[in-house]
Amino acid sequence: MKVVITGGTGMLGRRLALRILARPELAGPDGTPEAVDELVLFDAFEPVEPPPDDPRVEVVTGDICDPATVEGLIDGATDAVFHFAAVVSGGAEADFDLGYAVNLDGGRNVLEASRHTGRCPKIVFTSSLAVYGGERSVDDSTALTPQTSYGTQKAIGELLVNDYTRKGFVDGRTLRLPTIVVRPGKPNAAASGFASSILREPLQGDDVSNPVSRDTRMLILSPKRAVQAFIDVHNADGATLGPNRSVMMNGLSPSIEEMLDTLRAIGGDVVADRVRDEPDALVQSIVDAWAWYADGARAAALGMEPDASVSEIIENFIADELDGKIVR
Amino acid sequence: MKVVITGGTGMLGRRLALRILARPELAGPDGTPEAVDELVLFDAFEPVEPPPDDPRVEVVTGDICDPATVEGLIDGATDAVFHFAAVVSGGAEADFDLGYAVNLDGGRNVLEASRHTGRCPKIVFTSSLAVYGGERSVDDSTALTPQTSYGTQKAIGELLVNDYTRKGFVDGRTLRLPTIVVRPGKPNAAASGFASSILREPLQGDDVSNPVSRDTRMLILSPKRAVQAFIDVHNADGATLGPNRSVMMNGLSPSIEEMLDTLRAIGGDVVADRVRDEPDALVQSIVDAWAWYADGARAAALGMEPDASVSEIIENFIADELDGKIVR
Repeated sequence: MKVVITGGTGMLGRRLALRILARPELAGPDGTPEAVDELVLFDAFEPVEPPPDDPRVEVVTGDICDPATVEGLIDGATDAVFHFAAVVSGGAEADFDLGYAVNLDGGRNVLEASRHTGRCPKIVFTSSLAVYGGERSVDDSTALTPQTSYGTQKAIGELLVNDYTRKGFVDGRTLRLPTIVVRPGKPNAAASGFASSILREPLQGDDVSNPVSRDTRMLILSPKRAVQAFIDVHNADGATLGPNRSVMMNGLSPSIEEMLDTLRAIGGDVVADRVRDEPDALVQSIVDAWAWYADGARAAALGMEPDASVSEIIENFIADELDGKIVR
Repeated sequence: MKVVITGGTGMLGRRLALRILARPELAGPDGTPEAVDELVLFDAFEPVEPPPDDPRVEVVTGDICDPATVEGLIDGATDAVFHFAAVVSGGAEADFDLGYAVNLDGGRNVLEASRHTGRCPKIVFTSSLAVYGGERSVDDSTALTPQTSYGTQKAIGELLVNDYTRKGFVDGRTLRLPTIVVRPGKPNAAASGFASSILREPLQGDDVSNPVSRDTRMLILSPKRAVQAFIDVHNADGATLGPNRSVMMNGLSPSIEEMLDTLRAIGGDVVADRVRDEPDALVQSIVDAWAWYADGARAAALGMEPDASVSEIIENFIADELDGKIVR
């Protein structure tokens, strides 16, 4: 099968690519796993991390906002598209026009190009907890009341995926992600970035500031579980999903205090003491609009599992991204 | 004040125009009613009914999908925009591209042009019961799960109005309308059109078919009450509305049987016997996805009232649109 990943050299895109190249896991038309024999990784940027070294991989750099580029990317041989390309929350808030161009128009370009293949490819759209607004607990049927431009653009994307699917143009699925923790690499412009930084930076030997109160809870999911969830939602039976193609992924709901206590238990005082509380009213106000708890019954019914514990999340990060080494 | 009405020569646009020309009713910046001294009626079509004969009125024909046209329409003198221009439900379902071009891109053009005025004009966006899907009863906080392209486009418009308002680009408000009954004139491509036809055609001497079961209920509002609701939602205090600018308008919830019984009581057997039941499975399936009951607490709190009775709706139609004459 041929698979296209937009944002394919980014953090999640690259990890999904490595995973689906490793063994046949994506279901084909008859529901059984098929090998990927062509994998296109599309991105706006030159890769920061090296793309998978595999003859089946083609890296394409271009602008998701250009319809002709996307039409060329998603051709009549394409079986599945994972659409990760996006301007993150902080970026979409800072540059209103860029956010709508990439997150709304770019998404429409993906759907239109997929429609034009005439073969109803699978489209897995990445959404976010940011589609909600203000509720402490959310589930699959909570009304979408986004309070940022990013959340608005993601909510619109979900509506479009459902409508294109209903019309038979694509076989769409949306995965609403919790905050991904621990993101490797450098901080990005996502307002949620601190939730990774307060764990990642101390483990790598760097001081970091925590901008929110210790009793703030975050709904979190590891990159590893997120990649598994994307495979699961791709493989889910369309009839089981029904007309609403959005699936809220469950996560853990630790407080910042619990996250930092776990960091201390794993890394010791020298690591944990690299975190300084420096309250930032703006970040706190953004984070306060996010849900603490998800009751994603659809994800659970599909067998999609969150991480077992915060310890597991941190230990996996150390093993997978730091070669097992903590800087003490 | 200068007011622009898109779809301004259509059924609701024209009636709103006549109303706001008649006396000062639209609140200015200080909350008190101001006279309209410039009223632009924009439409894609040449007027079917004559536009108001008033020196303050300018009729402009053009394409809402063309950004430059809309930028020229909504200029730095514009205080308020009522955005009615739309491809109706049946039309958007039949022509997917046209529906998205007019209902999504056209709406974005209105928001962008309004933003570019730099003066945060009031935007009143027309939405519909079609944003819901499948629930018998709906309220302001029911999740939007549209089951048509038209409903999808309206739900997206609501999200955009909220985001542009949050950013301070416009002072937006959305009115979610029940099915408008009795629409005067010719049947249009709206899937809900029969709800007017089964009353209008018999009163005008024509036979008509009723495509749905007699126990089907419709959530309905008269054109007169709809015009009042648009004025009310324009005049509502923005702080009271808060970040969610969508207001679900209440209506009556008669069954088709009750509507036709009322027609018989007013027009007699000769009129009522012009209705023949001719079940149409497609229309029934579309209508079955619409809500029967609305509990629009926000509209009620704003003092926005539905009609008093089906009798009142029919009597007003006869008085206002048929010069008081029923064809027997």
